[in-house]
Amino acid sequence: MSNKHLAALPLGGVGIIGTNMMVYEYGGEYIVVDAGVSFPNENTPGVDVIVPDTRFLREHAKHIKAVFITHAHEDHIGAVGYLWDDFAGAPVYASPLSAMVLQGKLQELGIKPKKGEVVVTTTREQYKAGPFSVEYVPVSHSIPEAFALAIRTPLGTIVHTGDYKFDAAAPFGQITDEKRLAEIGKEGVLAAFGDSTNAQNPHESGSEAPVLEHLTQLVKDTKGRLIFAAFASHFGRTFEVAKVAVAQGRKVCFLGRTINKFIAHSKHLGYWPKELNNWVVDAEEISGLPANKVFVFASGTQGEGGSSLTRLSQGTDVRGIKLREGDTVLLSSRMIPGNERGILNVIDGLSNLGVNVISELTDRSIHVSGHCGQPEMKRMYKLLNPRFVVPVHGEPRQMKAHAELARAEGYTPVRLKGGHKLILAEEGAADFRPQLSQHTYPHGFNYIDGLNILPNDPLILKERRKLGYDGLLVASLAVRANGEWLSDVALTTRGLMDEVVQADLLKGAVAKTTQALEAVFRDGRIDDRNRAAEVMQQTLRRYFKQERGKQPTIVTQFVQV
Amino acid sequence: MSNKHLAALPLGGVGIIGTNMMVYEYGGEYIVVDAGVSFPNENTPGVDVIVPDTRFLREHAKHIKAVFITHAHEDHIGAVGYLWDDFAGAPVYASPLSAMVLQGKLQELGIKPKKGEVVVTTTREQYKAGPFSVEYVPVSHSIPEAFALAIRTPLGTIVHTGDYKFDAAAPFGQITDEKRLAEIGKEGVLAAFGDSTNAQNPHESGSEAPVLEHLTQLVKDTKGRLIFAAFASHFGRTFEVAKVAVAQGRKVCFLGRTINKFIAHSKHLGYWPKELNNWVVDAEEISGLPANKVFVFASGTQGEGGSSLTRLSQGTDVRGIKLREGDTVLLSSRMIPGNERGILNVIDGLSNLGVNVISELTDRSIHVSGHCGQPEMKRMYKLLNPRFVVPVHGEPRQMKAHAELARAEGYTPVRLKGGHKLILAEEGAADFRPQLSQHTYPHGFNYIDGLNILPNDPLILKERRKLGYDGLLVASLAVRANGEWLSDVALTTRGLMDEVVQADLLKGAVAKTTQALEAVFRDGRIDDRNRAAEVMQQTLRRYFKQERGKQPTIVTQFVQV
Repeated sequence: MSNKHLAALPLGGVGIIGTNMMVYEYGGEYIVVDAGVSFPNENTPGVDVIVPDTRFLREHAKHIKAVFITHAHEDHIGAVGYLWDDFAGAPVYASPLSAMVLQGKLQELGIKPKKGEVVVTTTREQYKAGPFSVEYVPVSHSIPEAFALAIRTPLGTIVHTGDYKFDAAAPFGQITDEKRLAEIGKEGVLAAFGDSTNAQNPHESGSEAPVLEHLTQLVKDTKGRLIFAAFASHFGRTFEVAKVAVAQGRKVCFLGRTINKFIAHSKHLGYWPKELNNWVVDAEEISGLPANKVFVFASGTQGEGGSSLTRLSQGTDVRGIKLREGDTVLLSSRMIPGNERGILNVIDGLSNLGVNVISELTDRSIHVSGHCGQPEMKRMYKLLNPRFVVPVHGEPRQMKAHAELARAEGYTPVRLKGGHKLILAEEGAADFRPQLSQHTYPHGFNYIDGLNILPNDPLILKERRKLGYDGLLVASLAVRANGEWLSDVALTTRGLMDEVVQADLLKGAVAKTTQALEAVFRDGRIDDRNRAAEVMQQTLRRYFKQERGKQPTIVTQFVQV
Repeated sequence: MSNKHLAALPLGGVGIIGTNMMVYEYGGEYIVVDAGVSFPNENTPGVDVIVPDTRFLREHAKHIKAVFITHAHEDHIGAVGYLWDDFAGAPVYASPLSAMVLQGKLQELGIKPKKGEVVVTTTREQYKAGPFSVEYVPVSHSIPEAFALAIRTPLGTIVHTGDYKFDAAAPFGQITDEKRLAEIGKEGVLAAFGDSTNAQNPHESGSEAPVLEHLTQLVKDTKGRLIFAAFASHFGRTFEVAKVAVAQGRKVCFLGRTINKFIAHSKHLGYWPKELNNWVVDAEEISGLPANKVFVFASGTQGEGGSSLTRLSQGTDVRGIKLREGDTVLLSSRMIPGNERGILNVIDGLSNLGVNVISELTDRSIHVSGHCGQPEMKRMYKLLNPRFVVPVHGEPRQMKAHAELARAEGYTPVRLKGGHKLILAEEGAADFRPQLSQHTYPHGFNYIDGLNILPNDPLILKERRKLGYDGLLVASLAVRANGEWLSDVALTTRGLMDEVVQADLLKGAVAKTTQALEAVFRDGRIDDRNRAAEVMQQTLRRYFKQERGKQPTIVTQFVQV
């Protein structure tokens, strides 16, 4: 048996923005940092959300000591509920806001955590979990209560930065606790696992303060109705902007489930500004007010179908509100890669309605990122002075840029690889150099699909993509148990052709298939259904390729009489 | 009968980048400007390309006097072949390069134009077409031989700018003929139909010269193998960069069908630089050369599946070339909206391989657009001094910005609307104000789908999207002509569930369906197949919604015995 070692095994969040989940191990005992989702794309049609593949956790359930959530963004907290059983009763640590968000999610899934299973954190506390001791260190981000974690172990301290930036002038949320980070740095940091999102940005992320100043001016300059769209979780910004609107005599209305949840949490936690009391009205009321009295928060900055903003952009009446010429939409957000087309469609729809749209396309001051740019990354590592820098939370180009920055700054970057443990230190080996395990551990994605959970590399999604691309042809045949063949092939299509206009084509396909089956099964008995299915598949595939230039999914069915 | 009027009817290219096609009418006679394609997106799965709906042309075939192509980009020329018959033998005018590209496309589609059906243009010529007289005026763009059209009519001159920019220092291609535009402006311009693509860009598009200087430096600085990716049609840039590489002692290899077609055209038309002679080698040869002797042009700047660059980014061996650490990729292009995720996947794949990628993400000097920014639009309108400015070639936000710019500059912007004629002038009505026809003309898209052409608003694509999103359930029943019902329901799924693991679910569905059918058809005879299909649909829909939370496409089939 080898000596005890300290290792990190990423179950998500490496090479991808989303599904964050890092497992830290010391001597066969584990803690988990974050459990996030990512969102479906064109490769995962019909899927609700994507969560990490947690077979590893299930196999080591007894040795999971705790789960630590860094902050309440979906890509960090969204999967906790779906994976609840995998944590096998280990306590989940979360700040007051994160804990409240989490409780809401668990409730929706019908999960009732036992006493002690959700622990609300404070700063400066050391949370013990087996051989680990974890401290929450405040950082600035685009949601209040974001934290870096200082994870102390017998073989050294790991700082897991979480999502962070430096914003000493942040008008709300938190200011990165540089003093504490410096103290931890002085104690000695073995490895920093750092946010890579904006590692290709040579500039500071920028402070929230000038954004608010700019938004304030835009609100003041707006004459007609004002619709404000931002990430719901960035409610600090939204509340500040709403305060400006209220000071201008506008009533405020919040459209969207998520923002209303954050409002409820904010009232509990003291984030809700009193200035907004008595100014919040519902959609029905606001739709009756004069244009210069209207401020509406609309969700849907990423062009999500069904969101308030998307529906408004399509000219839809959303609970009495219908946009028109003279209205102004402030889109205070950035486009998340992959969402561009959907967002442009929203902006185009609004433009078609004659709505004045102010977005990052024409106004770069309308938003700043919550993720550190290169100068901030350097600042973080200067505070921590880590022996190793481990890029996480990024797509490959970002993680590569992060490693290059670390190297240029004189640190030693270390690369993670999905499914491999990164062994960082070993008992009694002072000069140990980090290395990847040879063994591959189960990792990847699970897909929440209605009430199904589709496993890694799901055939089902491949079938869906093919159906959606090439359309469908169903070919059925009635047969007796003895193989006697009682019908012509019945053909039905979807997404392939016009069955009325091209009726002859179907007739031709039936004839060809009958012919081909007769040639193989000369006595009129289908004594081998697999072979018959093959014959039908091959005949129909060739026929449709030749006649229509398409290769649909072909489903063959034997209806037993 | 009303007086003769001058009108414009957009059959494409308004509210969309792509499928450009403008019909100009005078007194019941027509010319067509451009016939372009657009490319499929997630709403049009499986489609090859999209072309304008040309029912209007077919209905007026006898009165189409000519087709004028402004330049050889796909969104302007790509649909000519597919729509060839709609032009009913009218001559298609095109510059030498455009004509050559067009002939290639026609050949691929098996179309042999008759004598006089493709006419090669020169500048300063006036091409008569019924009451119209058309002159080609050179403009700078991202492909050689781009032209604005001065269209003279009895009721005034229209300038259709085509895609343009001003680049007095263009190292290749053409320089916008400001002198001629000013002359035309002096003669008097009724309306300018202008490029809107970059109407939201407050800056000049920028000259090609500094881009080439910058690329030259990057080529010189590169130590290992160099892979250059740019739009194939932007071959002027590619040839210039290849010349630099050759001067550094690198052999050059061109991967991709389209670039090789442009090379062939270039040799015919004199665009091919002699400096490259004897330096071009094939992929097999270049893969054996030392790293610093290698320059490869790879197609696929938009992350197109199957393109050389995409395959290289996946670590695939492309005809002996396989990328590795130490290689450099210069991605000299911009991301076309909607393609971002695919392009980032390419960059990420390259990053994973350790390849050094230089792209617009980190280097804004690696590309300039071929489309005018706001200062150039102002310059164009100053030269032309048009009575009306008609924004075309843009998405709604861009066309809106274009109209706002025109108004701010003191011109009168006029809005086009798909399916409506914009009547610009009327015989004998000196103070005529442009107006949209009340009548709606057929317009929209046709979808090239293998050997099918899917019409406007195709049900087939809706079916495909639903199949691809929710998966499929096929339910078949063997019945006699008299309705006697000979089998259980046979169920097959695709993209829905694991039929082996969830076999019980299928059994339950069979039982439920049988039960439901028995309850309705008590005598065991299905005397109404529509009703039976409804019963099956409803039962299965409810069952799968409840058991799996999914609503698949349900295909019901009666196999007649």
